[in-house]
Amino acid sequence: MNKNMQTYAYYLDQIEAELMRCTSEPKIDSEQTVVDAMRYSLLSGGKRVRPVLTLAVANALGSATDQNLLSLASAIEMIHAYSLIHDDLPAMDNDDLRRGKPTNHIVYGEGMAVLAGDGLLNLAYEELFDLCKKQPVLNKACLNIAHQAGVNGMIGGQSMDMTKFESDDPEKSLQYLIKLQKLKTGGLIKAATLSGYYFAEAMQNTDNFNSQLEELFIKYADRLGLAFQIRDDLLDVISNEEKLGKTIGKDARDKKLTFVTLLGVEGSKEYENRLYDEIVSILNQLEKLNVNINFLSCFTSVLMRRDY
Amino acid sequence: MNKNMQTYAYYLDQIEAELMRCTSEPKIDSEQTVVDAMRYSLLSGGKRVRPVLTLAVANALGSATDQNLLSLASAIEMIHAYSLIHDDLPAMDNDDLRRGKPTNHIVYGEGMAVLAGDGLLNLAYEELFDLCKKQPVLNKACLNIAHQAGVNGMIGGQSMDMTKFESDDPEKSLQYLIKLQKLKTGGLIKAATLSGYYFAEAMQNTDNFNSQLEELFIKYADRLGLAFQIRDDLLDVISNEEKLGKTIGKDARDKKLTFVTLLGVEGSKEYENRLYDEIVSILNQLEKLNVNINFLSCFTSVLMRRDY
Repeated sequence: MNKNMQTYAYYLDQIEAELMRCTSEPKIDSEQTVVDAMRYSLLSGGKRVRPVLTLAVANALGSATDQNLLSLASAIEMIHAYSLIHDDLPAMDNDDLRRGKPTNHIVYGEGMAVLAGDGLLNLAYEELFDLCKKQPVLNKACLNIAHQAGVNGMIGGQSMDMTKFESDDPEKSLQYLIKLQKLKTGGLIKAATLSGYYFAEAMQNTDNFNSQLEELFIKYADRLGLAFQIRDDLLDVISNEEKLGKTIGKDARDKKLTFVTLLGVEGSKEYENRLYDEIVSILNQLEKLNVNINFLSCFTSVLMRRDY
Repeated sequence: MNKNMQTYAYYLDQIEAELMRCTSEPKIDSEQTVVDAMRYSLLSGGKRVRPVLTLAVANALGSATDQNLLSLASAIEMIHAYSLIHDDLPAMDNDDLRRGKPTNHIVYGEGMAVLAGDGLLNLAYEELFDLCKKQPVLNKACLNIAHQAGVNGMIGGQSMDMTKFESDDPEKSLQYLIKLQKLKTGGLIKAATLSGYYFAEAMQNTDNFNSQLEELFIKYADRLGLAFQIRDDLLDVISNEEKLGKTIGKDARDKKLTFVTLLGVEGSKEYENRLYDEIVSILNQLEKLNVNINFLSCFTSVLMRRDY
């Protein structure tokens, strides 16, 4: 196993342990049914892309992983988990398979699934206020998370996704889709990346952190979010359910506006490759500013070539 | 109009203006459908019990209302509004009337209603992190809000409400219901009351704030939350829809565990009166500690005698 794979495995171990701790006694009254439902979705594995990004970016900037960084990263994963539970509801995407298991509402019923999502979103913020109690200087990271998760971010994107957009002009449709996905998928990817950045900035408190460096991470996150979504759209067409752990072919069935329905498989791959080239160029610029891009480069490349 | 009614009207004006500000440009991108849905429920009036409590407690302790206090109070009302939208969903209480208007999912559809609730919950926390950026000392109030709104508070209570409790022992049923309602309705009433207390404590930073004073406010909120719920249960039986603005007789139809189904109308009124006596005694103790209980006494009494 190479060094970067070891790092990834180590990140995953730490994140899983922290997610378990946040949803166990004495943190929460685990007698409640809603806690079972929350744990069912939160602790069902997954790539943990967002919290890994937070740890990786902070580490790349010279900040070691500590309990505070783990709290920050895990809160973002809880927000991601809530959004999946609500997205999968019959009134939204109506999915019954996620990560190879029945979705939350299939197991616990719709009412409890809504509540489990609410519980995770709320718990994420409770953890973040608890974190700011210990480290008020991390408020900037927390505020950004709430901003990117909300109506000006992920929820706004989901609203656009649920609002039928119709246009005969493919360019207009593409621009709508890009805006939608920069918010919906991009929101939390950006929150995760910038949380790592703001954590390092707050903890190190040196002149190394300036708007040029921050801007590069914002550009990196923007492109990664979009590329990540294009890959998702591609996998819905070219993968299989066993590998993906969720229903495939749904986008076409639901007549969804996706990169594949707009650009086709080849066009989407081309767009993905363009974004990948831009990401490589951004990472090279970051390296010149003494950021250790080793793991980030490898992780980005794995994400963009993934077949699950 | 007497002095206390004027104060109440003034509180309402300030709260309505703040709720409007939080859900308008430039705060949020109001192009999104989800924002319409959020505003539909948030700006539909109501007694604004929770934010009024926050303002009233802070004022009673000698802190004037300012923008920070209004932010704190309004965030709690947003959390309350989200909880009503989700509670009204078909998969939860399945209500189609609220404050005399069709419920959120009747107007916007279930998916958008789920999202509108999510949007309000998230926006509340975004406002609170923004507040802590300006006043880190208010973190204690914000952490308490997140705690009372979450699985150890309101969401835990809602989970208990959705989990069928069956016992032949009426005393066991009553204890279950009291625990449930202390969390479900009591959670935010306590958060609202304590937010006013923690605001005054943080802003004044004097020795006047001690555990004895805090404990009295906790006791006050606990009893008020319970009494408020008993009144709700009573009104479901003795009021009419026009006055109440929501469907009545639902508890019996849904075979819900309520104070009226357990204690009957007279038993519930007796319990309510006992709680009221305790509240009066607590307020008298607060007065001896130089708290100005004038408005709080009147407001509590109005809430407990309300017929809507």
